[in-house]
Amino acid sequence: MSVTAAQGFTAAGIAAGIKDNGNPDLALVVNNGPRLAAAGVFTSNRVKAAPVQWSEQVLRGGAVSAVVLNSGGANACTGPKGFQDTHATAEKAAEALGGEHNAGEVAVASTGLIGVLLPMDKLLPGIDTAVAALSADGGEAAAVAIKTTDTVHKTASATQDGWTVGGMAKGAGMLAPGLATMLVVLTTDADLDSATLDRALRAATRTTFDRVDSDGCMSTNDTVLLLASGASGKTPAYESFAEAVRTVCDDLARQLIGDAEGASKDIRIEVVGAADEDDAVEVGRSIARNNLLKCAIHGEDPNWGRVLSAIGTTSAAFDPDRLNVAINGVWVCKNGSVGEDRDLVSMKDREVRITADLATGSASAVIWTNDLTADYVHENSAYSS
Amino acid sequence: MSVTAAQGFTAAGIAAGIKDNGNPDLALVVNNGPRLAAAGVFTSNRVKAAPVQWSEQVLRGGAVSAVVLNSGGANACTGPKGFQDTHATAEKAAEALGGEHNAGEVAVASTGLIGVLLPMDKLLPGIDTAVAALSADGGEAAAVAIKTTDTVHKTASATQDGWTVGGMAKGAGMLAPGLATMLVVLTTDADLDSATLDRALRAATRTTFDRVDSDGCMSTNDTVLLLASGASGKTPAYESFAEAVRTVCDDLARQLIGDAEGASKDIRIEVVGAADEDDAVEVGRSIARNNLLKCAIHGEDPNWGRVLSAIGTTSAAFDPDRLNVAINGVWVCKNGSVGEDRDLVSMKDREVRITADLATGSASAVIWTNDLTADYVHENSAYSS
Repeated sequence: MSVTAAQGFTAAGIAAGIKDNGNPDLALVVNNGPRLAAAGVFTSNRVKAAPVQWSEQVLRGGAVSAVVLNSGGANACTGPKGFQDTHATAEKAAEALGGEHNAGEVAVASTGLIGVLLPMDKLLPGIDTAVAALSADGGEAAAVAIKTTDTVHKTASATQDGWTVGGMAKGAGMLAPGLATMLVVLTTDADLDSATLDRALRAATRTTFDRVDSDGCMSTNDTVLLLASGASGKTPAYESFAEAVRTVCDDLARQLIGDAEGASKDIRIEVVGAADEDDAVEVGRSIARNNLLKCAIHGEDPNWGRVLSAIGTTSAAFDPDRLNVAINGVWVCKNGSVGEDRDLVSMKDREVRITADLATGSASAVIWTNDLTADYVHENSAYSS
Repeated sequence: MSVTAAQGFTAAGIAAGIKDNGNPDLALVVNNGPRLAAAGVFTSNRVKAAPVQWSEQVLRGGAVSAVVLNSGGANACTGPKGFQDTHATAEKAAEALGGEHNAGEVAVASTGLIGVLLPMDKLLPGIDTAVAALSADGGEAAAVAIKTTDTVHKTASATQDGWTVGGMAKGAGMLAPGLATMLVVLTTDADLDSATLDRALRAATRTTFDRVDSDGCMSTNDTVLLLASGASGKTPAYESFAEAVRTVCDDLARQLIGDAEGASKDIRIEVVGAADEDDAVEVGRSIARNNLLKCAIHGEDPNWGRVLSAIGTTSAAFDPDRLNVAINGVWVCKNGSVGEDRDLVSMKDREVRITADLATGSASAVIWTNDLTADYVHENSAYSS
């Protein structure tokens, strides 16, 4: 499991003292080759954290030998000093790792409060500690060290015909637009070039992390990296590899939703009968972001009127008098009006399934979100204080 | 105050039994002329309640002699039967009022749960009761009868040079896109035609009700009507009249925000330095809809990183490194980075002022919203059950 499931990678997770409470807060993932191929997807927020700006630059080179990740501070909106700190982090890691490593191939990812400079006097020495702790079993420790409000650490892997894709994630969120802060590192020992990794990663994130919309808020720090070591000596067919990447991303995305801040329900919104996939996604997101619906679902109330209100705010193709909505399989709304008895809907389980049928075409999409709870309010009203 | 502040209007508010708890739930406002000029603005939701569809049709005629409003049921997503019920309501009101009244000049507005047919066996007899209760002092009772989750009824008026604009509102919301359900009836005894009323009403709602965004959700029922009786015999200059309408709308809009469901803070978001007004409004709305920020403000936490994250999701013209943000007058973010000490910000008062400076141009806009609270979650998770 995790980032060390694939051959050719070592990792570590340690407590550098960035977090006041002494919990692990610094992770290091190292690609020991023979290849250093890499691809990355980042937040589409126009306000980008320093580590995102840095890592985007690193990825342009197509080679990543190591990733330094810290929790306890996002290093976002921190000005030129924040960028210098990220640069110094990469320099320090390259130096501590020695050998062929150079800062231009070290990606950096950060998560935590925006607008606060990182305590570099703790972070830089922490890198030495992390390098000393590197191990082929270090994936779990690394996954633990990137947690912020996560209640559990998140890892996944898939193995086929002698090659493996592994990964770790933190956050409860969405990439592009992006939510909370999501940091993901995926690794593989398949022998593939950066262009192939990029293609597989973009295809996978488009229908997994991109369709997780827990609270509609977009992070300044979202980062998903895929590194390939080539250590298995295997070069899988593109389709097999892409499917394995998608499987691991889907697994991690579901874990993110399942651990979303304060949530008591995981809500699967499937939009069907859409004219095209864009319409289906637009409608799904609009439903996912409707606070009134999210509260109703928290109260186990199949208030389908909120679903129709949300659909009505979109530009998707539909006729209001032909819309159908099912909640947990009961078609409570038919032809834009009252359908089956809402008392037939049971909402006791954590997973709630909403199907919105636009009755226009044959395209569909699935968006995952969570309910809105008093615990969410509590957690986020006390976050930075 | 209220809709009977202007001459030529009578109103009533009574309990017809639409609400199970016996509270007032039916209001009637009658224009006794000599003019029956009228204008209306409705929700931009593509899923429109039956009364909205009906009243849009009535307004096309440019004359409104009476408005029937009910709480206790939105009559939205109720199919052909729902539309027939609205039609029957207008017919019944015209018949009960007698004289020159005809159904084609009776507007109808409804608020309450979506997807439930109105109890017409109670509503129709209620119209007789309301007609019998009509009075030149009935404006307050009418304002009370349209309340749903409102804790107080909302009225306002402005008088100048022998003519008056009065009004009542219910809801906590926004028009176009629209939030919760907002019903507003404005009256005036100024002697003006429907085209002039329409121009003044659209100008007023654009910068008042349209800039109130309590929870980002758009209603199927939002309705704002302006009726003129001409009873004062005065024809004010357009600018004076438009300003009076704007003043009354602004007063009512502020009352809506002040009574928003579960809110503990009223948040005034002023976007300045924008390239144009559209950019300013887009940025203001994006900030207003950021759940993480709304929770932070509930916790009296000046978490300006959430403001920058929200700005970053827009398409407005700005440079991330030139953004400035003030909270209650303290510039906590300067040039996209850490500014004045956030501990200088006091957030004890109910009103919180956020200023976002895009540092690009000279356009500005003000959007009002509320914080996100556990009470909001509670109220909306228990709403329909």
